[in-house]
Amino acid sequence: MMAVRSCLGVKFGVSGLLSQLTSSTRHHGSRPCVSPILTPQHRNTSSSSTSSKVKVDLDQNTGVAVMHMQSPPVNSLSLDFITELCISLEKLEMDKGCRGLIITSSQPKVFSAGLDILEMYGKSPERCGEFWKSVQELWLKLYSSNMVTIAAVNGSSPAGGCLMALTCDYRIMADNPAYSIGLNETQLGIVAPFWFKDTLMNTIGLRNSEMALQLGLLYKPQDALKVGLVDQVVPEDQVLPAAVKSVNKWLAVPEHARQITKSMMRKSTIDRLTSNREADIQNFVSFITRESIQKSLRGYMELLKQKKA
Amino acid sequence: MMAVRSCLGVKFGVSGLLSQLTSSTRHHGSRPCVSPILTPQHRNTSSSSTSSKVKVDLDQNTGVAVMHMQSPPVNSLSLDFITELCISLEKLEMDKGCRGLIITSSQPKVFSAGLDILEMYGKSPERCGEFWKSVQELWLKLYSSNMVTIAAVNGSSPAGGCLMALTCDYRIMADNPAYSIGLNETQLGIVAPFWFKDTLMNTIGLRNSEMALQLGLLYKPQDALKVGLVDQVVPEDQVLPAAVKSVNKWLAVPEHARQITKSMMRKSTIDRLTSNREADIQNFVSFITRESIQKSLRGYMELLKQKKA
Amino acid sequence: MMAVRSCLGVKFGVSGLLSQLTSSTRHHGSRPCVSPILTPQHRNTSSSSTSSKVKVDLDQNTGVAVMHMQSPPVNSLSLDFITELCISLEKLEMDKGCRGLIITSSQPKVFSAGLDILEMYGKSPERCGEFWKSVQELWLKLYSSNMVTIAAVNGSSPAGGCLMALTCDYRIMADNPAYSIGLNETQLGIVAPFWFKDTLMNTIGLRNSEMALQLGLLYKPQDALKVGLVDQVVPEDQVLPAAVKSVNKWLAVPEHARQITKSMMRKSTIDRLTSNREADIQNFVSFITRESIQKSLRGYMELLKQKKA
Repeated sequence: MMAVRSCLGVKFGVSGLLSQLTSSTRHHGSRPCVSPILTPQHRNTSSSSTSSKVKVDLDQNTGVAVMHMQSPPVNSLSLDFITELCISLEKLEMDKGCRGLIITSSQPKVFSAGLDILEMYGKSPERCGEFWKSVQELWLKLYSSNMVTIAAVNGSSPAGGCLMALTCDYRIMADNPAYSIGLNETQLGIVAPFWFKDTLMNTIGLRNSEMALQLGLLYKPQDALKVGLVDQVVPEDQVLPAAVKSVNKWLAVPEHARQITKSMMRKSTIDRLTSNREADIQNFVSFITRESIQKSLRGYMELLKQKKA
Repeated sequence: MMAVRSCLGVKFGVSGLLSQLTSSTRHHGSRPCVSPILTPQHRNTSSSSTSSKVKVDLDQNTGVAVMHMQSPPVNSLSLDFITELCISLEKLEMDKGCRGLIITSSQPKVFSAGLDILEMYGKSPERCGEFWKSVQELWLKLYSSNMVTIAAVNGSSPAGGCLMALTCDYRIMADNPAYSIGLNETQLGIVAPFWFKDTLMNTIGLRNSEMALQLGLLYKPQDALKVGLVDQVVPEDQVLPAAVKSVNKWLAVPEHARQITKSMMRKSTIDRLTSNREADIQNFVSFITRESIQKSLRGYMELLKQKKA
Repeated sequence: MMAVRSCLGVKFGVSGLLSQLTSSTRHHGSRPCVSPILTPQHRNTSSSSTSSKVKVDLDQNTGVAVMHMQSPPVNSLSLDFITELCISLEKLEMDKGCRGLIITSSQPKVFSAGLDILEMYGKSPERCGEFWKSVQELWLKLYSSNMVTIAAVNGSSPAGGCLMALTCDYRIMADNPAYSIGLNETQLGIVAPFWFKDTLMNTIGLRNSEMALQLGLLYKPQDALKVGLVDQVVPEDQVLPAAVKSVNKWLAVPEHARQITKSMMRKSTIDRLTSNREADIQNFVSFITRESIQKSLRGYMELLKQKKA
């Protein structure tokens, strides 16, 4: 077994908490002001657009967009950030000039630290439900995308960050043993929901998923490659070039046939969430608002504060 | 990722088109005159029978039949050829003296080039439906066979040829890097139906299937071995001897227990098609008769003609 | 293919028959007198209890119990032995002081030889049904345990013995090529039921299971490791220490999250049996009481007698 267990408090191997502890500004409840992403600019060969947390560069010649996540410090998936990601994804999905998408991070050393724990701690059930709905939405948009999607994993990618990578068609990770990737929810005392589990099983199989999910395993890049959690490991400065090379390979396949095939492969997994969204939200809210879980999250946050001090 | 992408127009790595372009005789609509295969000849220790496109040698001592596909030039699966294959399979299945079946090719360099594109191009919906029903029938007969079935893959085996190999209990391939095997339908702009997908997933797992089907991957023998698409790779002249050795190993297992076990493993996959045959036919017909798909097939055929010229 | 086929009559590679041929005492129909296992002894740091065939040592400090199977000569799973195992498991499951369970054997060279053939030969349908119900019960208790379960496989483990190991969270096997493990039912002319099949598929995947079950494969430790049938292979005297190390690693994960995750992974497989227990019993009884199967079992038993003589 090549997997590497999560150590509580590892620098980036946590689900988004660290980001919030060091993040100075938050605007709960306010939806981000959406900047005009990807308005038609067909005279130019490329367009670039930036909302506050998501920067998208679309090459009109190749039809490939690169989406840079830039929500300091560690791309924690807050409601605001997820909302921006969903809006960007929807625009790209509807843009006929965009056929391929590379997702990467602008933040050093981290792809995405996963779901923002602060969205789950001390919040009202309504707010927790709203947050969870956005997480579902992000997964649905990514996992069912008609675009070729490549994860350029240029840093650590625990929990929800790993989930984002898992939704893509292909995953390339930087060969840096300081980085890790995995669904480490149990290490935080919480549980990855069934559709996280399904996505992982679809990628690394049932037995590997059983161990990975129960132990909350975080894999170093080479171990992630061995278990099939990522498809390719390259030197850190080669992650984006390799992603571009890869997306072009996928785009060479007749598009309509590829899209139907992708849909055929993922439909049953997607349907399972689509037909159970409300129940899944209720389930999450009732679990996360339990006193014991809140206490566990608080303990974890305090542990991190101590580590930082 | 060890897989090797399909190159359009590779000599044999196409789905049956090349065969028809170079084939001189075709008799659409006429069913083959079935020669009396495997009539009881219990005084002899072996029987040999040949219809126009299928030669079967049954060794009465061992109970093992070798089925040679000999539909020049590349064993494309036309309606006629499929019909002959089905008739041969049904006779063997009912013959109590036959317990094991080795499927191989008499044609040089190719196992089977897959479904005959000419059966899908410029044909009436009725004819397309008849063709598709025969493809279903071939798969059902092979995948649910009570016999031990071994694929002796002595040449390239794209698309429907790969499917035939996948239905067997065990696959042995010639170690010749000029050969390849895989479900490369997307490369032709068409889509492998759900039961092709199921058969592949049952063999190489979901994630490998997702990549193989979307990219239309053709694997060289050593790569096919690594991914589990074939079980054994041997020197070209050892394919048949290895298949004989293998079939005897499988036949050493108490027969009834083995058959029940095989049925238990495959039943749900078989039931899914059995209970959806008509809808699957309708789906195929409406897809393949679309103008855009017909245009795509025509373009592909013209590309091949140019390559040949 | 690394697997090693079963040889009929291999010393321990049989399903429990050998045990009964050499076992002198049997008390059919009488349930074992249950000794008071694990009554509260919180002043002591460990408790030890022994029923006639099951010895349990529980370390109150670590919360880890070691269950020694000691039903001479080869831990064949008779109705009596299974009943004792189930009672022990239920007590441990309800004991809040017990969080982890290591299952191992006190008998030399064998973990468990599997289901006791004498329970299946020459018995009334009622008795066969009672026996099968106990086998179901053992599987349900083990596969759905809230405890961390580790199989310390310190000897051969065919058929039902392999099943017991497969229910655990993690499997460690002694690196002795004289030992083997696998579901070899077909070699005896019988069929592993669907929930044996499901448990195997959940561990080594569909394709490996299809081969393993049809051929009745027994794997040597290193081959079992390669196919994923066991997770770790260690020198014989390190099996138990490695199991202790492993159970502590699993117990370090927040317990409630781990248990929910385990349940989520296994629920559908467990439900399939739970909702079909009676039909599965009827199916087993009608199969095993067939004259042809009884004859096959008798032939097998006589073969073993000759081997012994």
